[in-house]
Amino acid sequence: MRNTARWAAALGLTAAAVCGPLTGAAVAAPGAAPSSLYAPSALVLTTGHGSDAATATPERAVTLSCAPAASGTHPAAAQACAELRGAGGDFDALKPADGVMCTKVYDPVVVTVQGVWQGKRVAYERTFGNACMKQVLGGSVFEF
Amino acid sequence: MRNTARWAAALGLTAAAVCGPLTGAAVAAPGAAPSSLYAPSALVLTTGHGSDAATATPERAVTLSCAPAASGTHPAAAQACAELRGAGGDFDALKPADGVMCTKVYDPVVVTVQGVWQGKRVAYERTFGNACMKQVLGGSVFEF
Repeated sequence: MRNTARWAAALGLTAAAVCGPLTGAAVAAPGAAPSSLYAPSALVLTTGHGSDAATATPERAVTLSCAPAASGTHPAAAQACAELRGAGGDFDALKPADGVMCTKVYDPVVVTVQGVWQGKRVAYERTFGNACMKQVLGGSVFEF
Repeated sequence: MRNTARWAAALGLTAAAVCGPLTGAAVAAPGAAPSSLYAPSALVLTTGHGSDAATATPERAVTLSCAPAASGTHPAAAQACAELRGAGGDFDALKPADGVMCTKVYDPVVVTVQGVWQGKRVAYERTFGNACMKQVLGGSVFEF
Protein backbone atom coordinates (compact mmCIF):
# COMPACT_ATOMS: atom_id res chain seq x y z
CA MET A 1 0.00 0.00 0.00
CA ARG A 2 2.77 2.40 0.97
CA ASN A 3 4.66 1.40 -2.14
CA THR A 4 1.67 2.16 -4.28
CA ALA A 5 1.36 5.60 -2.73
CA ARG A 6 5.05 6.25 -3.19
CA TRP A 7 4.87 5.12 -6.79
CA ALA A 8 1.93 7.43 -7.45
CA ALA A 9 3.76 10.29 -5.78
CA ALA A 10 6.82 9.63 -7.91
CA LEU A 11 4.75 9.76 -11.05
CA GLY A 12 3.23 13.05 -10.01
CA LEU A 13 6.66 14.47 -9.32
CA THR A 14 7.95 13.51 -12.74
CA ALA A 15 5.36 15.83 -14.20
CA ALA A 16 5.77 18.51 -11.55
CA ALA A 17 9.52 18.66 -12.07
CA VAL A 18 9.00 19.81 -15.66
CA CYS A 19 7.09 22.86 -14.48
CA GLY A 20 9.83 24.31 -12.31
CA PRO A 21 11.99 23.76 -9.30
CA LEU A 22 10.33 22.31 -6.24
CA THR A 23 10.31 24.51 -3.17
CA GLY A 24 9.74 24.09 0.56
CA ALA A 25 11.56 22.65 3.54
CA ALA A 26 13.85 19.61 3.73
CA VAL A 27 11.24 16.98 3.10
CA ALA A 28 9.49 19.26 0.66
CA ALA A 29 12.63 20.46 -1.12
CA PRO A 30 13.76 17.59 -3.32
CA GLY A 31 15.42 20.03 -5.73
CA ALA A 32 18.34 20.82 -3.47
CA ALA A 33 18.02 18.74 -0.36
CA PRO A 34 18.40 15.12 -1.54
CA SER A 35 22.16 15.18 -1.68
CA SER A 36 22.41 15.86 2.01
CA LEU A 37 19.59 13.48 2.99
CA TYR A 38 20.18 10.66 0.54
CA ALA A 39 23.26 9.38 -1.26
CA PRO A 40 22.65 10.77 -4.73
CA SER A 41 21.44 8.53 -7.54
CA ALA A 42 21.35 10.40 -10.82
CA LEU A 43 22.08 8.76 -14.12
CA VAL A 44 22.11 9.47 -17.80
CA LEU A 45 21.58 6.53 -20.14
CA THR A 46 22.27 6.57 -23.85
CA THR A 47 21.76 4.14 -26.66
CA GLY A 48 22.97 4.11 -30.23
CA HIS A 49 23.63 1.74 -33.09
CA GLY A 50 27.15 0.44 -33.19
CA SER A 51 29.48 -1.86 -31.37
CA ASP A 52 31.03 0.66 -28.99
CA ALA A 53 30.22 4.02 -27.47
CA ALA A 54 33.34 5.68 -28.82
CA THR A 55 32.06 5.39 -32.38
CA ALA A 56 28.27 5.09 -32.02
CA THR A 57 26.24 8.30 -32.18
CA PRO A 58 23.96 8.50 -29.12
CA GLU A 59 20.51 8.33 -30.72
CA ARG A 60 18.63 8.48 -27.45
CA ALA A 61 19.62 9.82 -24.10
CA VAL A 62 17.47 9.87 -20.99
CA THR A 63 17.93 10.94 -17.40
CA LEU A 64 16.99 8.75 -14.47
CA SER A 65 16.99 9.84 -10.87
CA CYS A 66 15.99 7.36 -8.15
CA ALA A 67 16.16 9.37 -4.90
CA PRO A 68 14.20 10.74 -3.18
CA ALA A 69 11.66 9.71 -5.83
CA ALA A 70 11.93 8.14 -9.26
CA SER A 71 12.02 10.80 -11.95
CA GLY A 72 13.68 11.70 -15.20
CA THR A 73 13.00 11.58 -18.91
CA HIS A 74 13.29 7.78 -18.80
CA PRO A 75 9.88 6.55 -20.02
CA ALA A 76 9.45 4.13 -17.10
CA ALA A 77 11.47 5.76 -14.34
CA ALA A 78 9.70 4.12 -11.39
CA GLN A 79 9.98 0.64 -12.86
CA ALA A 80 13.60 1.20 -13.90
CA CYS A 81 14.55 2.40 -10.40
CA ALA A 82 12.80 -0.62 -8.84
CA GLU A 83 14.65 -3.02 -11.13
CA LEU A 84 17.96 -1.30 -10.50
CA ARG A 85 17.46 -1.49 -6.74
CA GLY A 86 16.57 -5.16 -7.19
CA ALA A 87 19.88 -5.69 -8.94
CA GLY A 88 21.77 -3.81 -6.22
CA GLY A 89 22.76 -1.18 -8.78
CA ASP A 90 24.63 -3.77 -10.85
CA PHE A 91 23.73 -3.21 -14.49
CA ASP A 92 25.05 -6.65 -15.39
CA ALA A 93 22.64 -8.25 -12.91
CA LEU A 94 19.39 -6.81 -14.26
CA LYS A 95 16.68 -9.43 -14.46
CA PRO A 96 15.89 -10.36 -18.08
CA ALA A 97 12.29 -10.04 -19.29
CA ASP A 98 10.42 -13.34 -19.37
CA GLY A 99 9.15 -15.11 -22.45
CA VAL A 100 10.47 -12.83 -25.17
CA MET A 101 12.29 -14.34 -28.14
CA CYS A 102 14.82 -12.38 -30.19
CA THR A 103 16.39 -13.11 -33.55
CA LYS A 104 20.12 -13.46 -33.59
CA VAL A 105 20.55 -10.93 -36.40
CA TYR A 106 23.67 -8.93 -35.58
CA ASP A 107 22.81 -5.25 -35.62
CA PRO A 108 24.65 -4.12 -32.52
CA VAL A 109 23.30 -1.56 -30.12
CA VAL A 110 25.42 -0.01 -27.42
CA VAL A 111 24.10 1.30 -24.12
CA THR A 112 25.99 3.58 -21.76
CA VAL A 113 25.18 4.58 -18.21
CA GLN A 114 26.99 7.38 -16.46
CA GLY A 115 26.51 9.32 -13.28
CA VAL A 116 26.10 8.28 -9.69
CA TRP A 117 24.26 5.38 -8.07
CA GLN A 118 23.81 5.62 -4.28
CA GLY A 119 26.81 7.90 -3.98
CA LYS A 120 29.17 5.90 -6.19
CA ARG A 121 30.22 6.85 -9.70
CA VAL A 122 28.90 4.71 -12.53
CA ALA A 123 30.59 4.32 -15.89
CA TYR A 124 28.98 1.43 -17.70
CA GLU A 125 28.94 0.37 -21.32
CA ARG A 126 27.39 -2.74 -22.82
CA THR A 127 26.87 -3.91 -26.38
CA PHE A 128 23.91 -6.08 -27.36
CA GLY A 129 23.61 -8.08 -30.57
CA ASN A 130 20.46 -6.20 -31.54
CA ALA A 131 17.83 -3.88 -30.10
CA CYS A 132 15.56 -6.78 -29.07
CA MET A 133 18.31 -8.33 -26.98
CA LYS A 134 18.96 -4.98 -25.31
CA GLN A 135 15.35 -4.75 -24.15
CA VAL A 136 15.10 -8.37 -23.08
CA LEU A 137 18.36 -8.48 -21.15
CA GLY A 138 18.15 -5.03 -19.63
CA GLY A 139 14.47 -5.08 -18.63
CA SER A 140 12.81 -1.71 -18.14
CA VAL A 141 16.10 -0.02 -17.39
CA PHE A 142 17.32 -0.23 -20.99
CA GLU A 143 13.88 0.20 -22.53
CA PHE A 144 13.98 3.83 -23.67
CA MET B 1 1.05 24.64 -30.90
CA ARG B 2 2.15 21.29 -32.22
CA ASN B 3 5.13 21.37 -29.90
CA THR B 4 2.91 22.02 -26.90
CA ALA B 5 0.68 19.15 -27.83
CA ARG B 6 3.62 16.87 -28.34
CA TRP B 7 5.08 17.91 -25.02
CA ALA B 8 1.81 17.20 -23.26
CA ALA B 9 1.52 13.85 -25.00
CA ALA B 10 5.05 12.93 -24.00
CA LEU B 11 4.29 13.78 -20.37
CA GLY B 12 1.15 11.71 -20.38
CA LEU B 13 2.97 8.82 -21.90
CA THR B 14 5.76 9.02 -19.38
CA ALA B 15 3.13 7.96 -16.88
CA ALA B 16 1.50 5.49 -19.25
CA ALA B 17 4.82 3.87 -20.00
CA VAL B 18 5.17 2.75 -16.40
CA CYS B 19 2.26 0.41 -16.97
CA GLY B 20 3.86 -1.54 -19.75
CA PRO B 21 6.33 -1.58 -22.59
CA LEU B 22 5.77 0.78 -25.47
CA THR B 23 4.43 -0.72 -28.58
CA GLY B 24 3.64 0.34 -32.10
CA ALA B 25 5.39 2.43 -34.68
CA ALA B 26 7.73 5.36 -34.17
CA VAL B 27 5.13 8.11 -34.33
CA ALA B 28 2.73 6.25 -32.05
CA ALA B 29 5.28 5.79 -29.29
CA PRO B 30 6.14 9.30 -28.03
CA GLY B 31 7.89 7.78 -25.05
CA ALA B 32 10.49 6.88 -27.59
CA ALA B 33 9.81 9.55 -30.16
CA PRO B 34 11.31 12.74 -28.66
CA SER B 35 14.81 11.55 -29.32
CA SER B 36 14.07 11.13 -32.99
CA LEU B 37 12.42 14.56 -33.15
CA TYR B 38 15.08 16.39 -31.18
CA ALA B 39 18.77 15.72 -30.80
CA PRO B 40 18.87 14.42 -27.25
CA SER B 41 20.23 16.62 -24.46
CA ALA B 42 20.41 14.71 -21.20
CA LEU B 43 23.10 15.31 -18.65
CA VAL B 44 24.14 14.29 -15.19
CA LEU B 45 26.19 16.75 -13.19
CA THR B 46 28.09 15.96 -10.03
CA THR B 47 30.07 17.94 -7.53
CA GLY B 48 32.34 16.94 -4.71
CA HIS B 49 35.20 18.25 -2.62
CA GLY B 50 38.61 17.46 -4.01
CA SER B 51 40.93 18.36 -6.81
CA ASP B 52 39.84 15.70 -9.29
CA ALA B 53 36.87 13.48 -9.99
CA ALA B 54 38.86 10.27 -9.73
CA THR B 55 39.38 10.79 -6.01
CA ALA B 56 36.51 13.10 -4.96
CA THR B 57 33.32 11.47 -3.67
CA PRO B 58 30.34 12.86 -5.59
CA GLU B 59 28.42 14.66 -2.83
CA ARG B 60 25.68 15.85 -5.12
CA ALA B 61 24.45 14.59 -8.44
CA VAL B 62 21.60 16.04 -10.47
CA THR B 63 20.03 15.31 -13.80
CA LEU B 64 19.38 17.98 -16.40
CA SER B 65 17.45 17.47 -19.59
CA CYS B 66 16.99 20.38 -21.99
CA ALA B 67 14.85 18.96 -24.81
CA PRO B 68 11.98 18.97 -25.52
CA ALA B 69 11.58 20.92 -22.26
CA ALA B 70 13.88 21.76 -19.37
CA SER B 71 13.55 19.19 -16.60
CA GLY B 72 15.55 17.20 -14.13
CA THR B 73 16.51 17.24 -10.49
CA HIS B 74 18.73 20.26 -11.14
CA PRO B 75 17.23 22.96 -8.86
CA ALA B 76 17.12 25.55 -11.65
CA ALA B 77 16.73 23.42 -14.76
CA ALA B 78 15.16 26.07 -17.01
CA GLN B 79 17.77 28.69 -16.16
CA ALA B 80 20.62 26.19 -16.50
CA CYS B 81 19.38 25.09 -19.94
CA ALA B 82 19.08 28.71 -21.07
CA GLU B 83 22.61 29.50 -19.93
CA LEU B 84 23.96 26.37 -21.57
CA ARG B 85 22.28 27.22 -24.84
CA GLY B 86 23.72 30.75 -24.53
CA ALA B 87 27.17 29.21 -24.22
CA GLY B 88 26.57 26.94 -27.21
CA GLY B 89 26.90 23.92 -24.95
CA ASP B 90 30.48 24.88 -24.06
CA PHE B 91 30.88 24.46 -20.31
CA ASP B 92 34.04 26.54 -20.36
CA ALA B 93 32.14 29.44 -21.92
CA LEU B 94 29.41 29.79 -19.28
CA LYS B 95 28.85 33.42 -18.38
CA PRO B 96 30.13 34.19 -14.86
CA ALA B 97 27.69 35.70 -12.35
CA ASP B 98 28.07 39.47 -11.95
CA GLY B 99 29.21 41.29 -8.86
CA VAL B 100 30.05 38.36 -6.59
CA MET B 101 33.37 38.31 -4.76
CA CYS B 102 35.02 35.10 -3.60
CA THR B 103 37.88 34.52 -1.20
CA LYS B 104 40.92 32.80 -2.61
CA VAL B 105 40.94 30.14 0.09
CA TYR B 106 41.89 26.88 -1.59
CA ASP B 107 39.29 24.25 -0.80
CA PRO B 108 38.89 22.67 -4.22
CA VAL B 109 35.60 21.52 -5.60
CA VAL B 110 35.34 19.40 -8.71
CA VAL B 111 32.41 19.37 -11.09
CA THR B 112 31.72 16.72 -13.71
CA VAL B 113 29.22 16.72 -16.54
CA GLN B 114 28.43 13.59 -18.51
CA GLY B 115 25.83 12.59 -21.03
CA VAL B 116 24.72 14.10 -24.29
CA TRP B 117 24.26 17.70 -25.40
CA GLN B 118 22.37 18.18 -28.66
CA GLY B 119 23.30 14.72 -29.83
CA LYS B 120 27.00 14.87 -28.91
CA ARG B 121 28.60 13.12 -25.99
CA VAL B 122 29.81 15.30 -23.15
CA ALA B 123 32.59 14.33 -20.74
CA TYR B 124 33.59 17.40 -18.80
CA GLU B 125 35.49 17.90 -15.59
CA ARG B 126 36.58 21.15 -13.99
CA THR B 127 38.12 22.01 -10.66
CA PHE B 128 37.43 25.29 -8.91
CA GLY B 129 39.48 26.80 -6.07
CA ASN B 130 36.48 26.77 -3.77
CA ALA B 131 32.70 26.40 -3.82
CA CYS B 132 32.13 30.14 -4.24
CA MET B 133 34.26 30.23 -7.40
CA LYS B 134 32.32 27.26 -8.76
CA GLN B 135 29.04 29.10 -8.44
CA VAL B 136 30.36 32.40 -9.76
CA LEU B 137 32.15 30.97 -12.76
CA GLY B 138 29.57 28.37 -13.67
CA GLY B 139 26.42 30.47 -13.20
CA SER B 140 23.18 28.56 -12.64
CA VAL B 141 24.50 25.48 -14.39
CA PHE B 142 26.90 24.60 -11.56
CA GLU B 143 24.64 25.88 -8.80
CA PHE B 144 23.21 22.67 -7.37
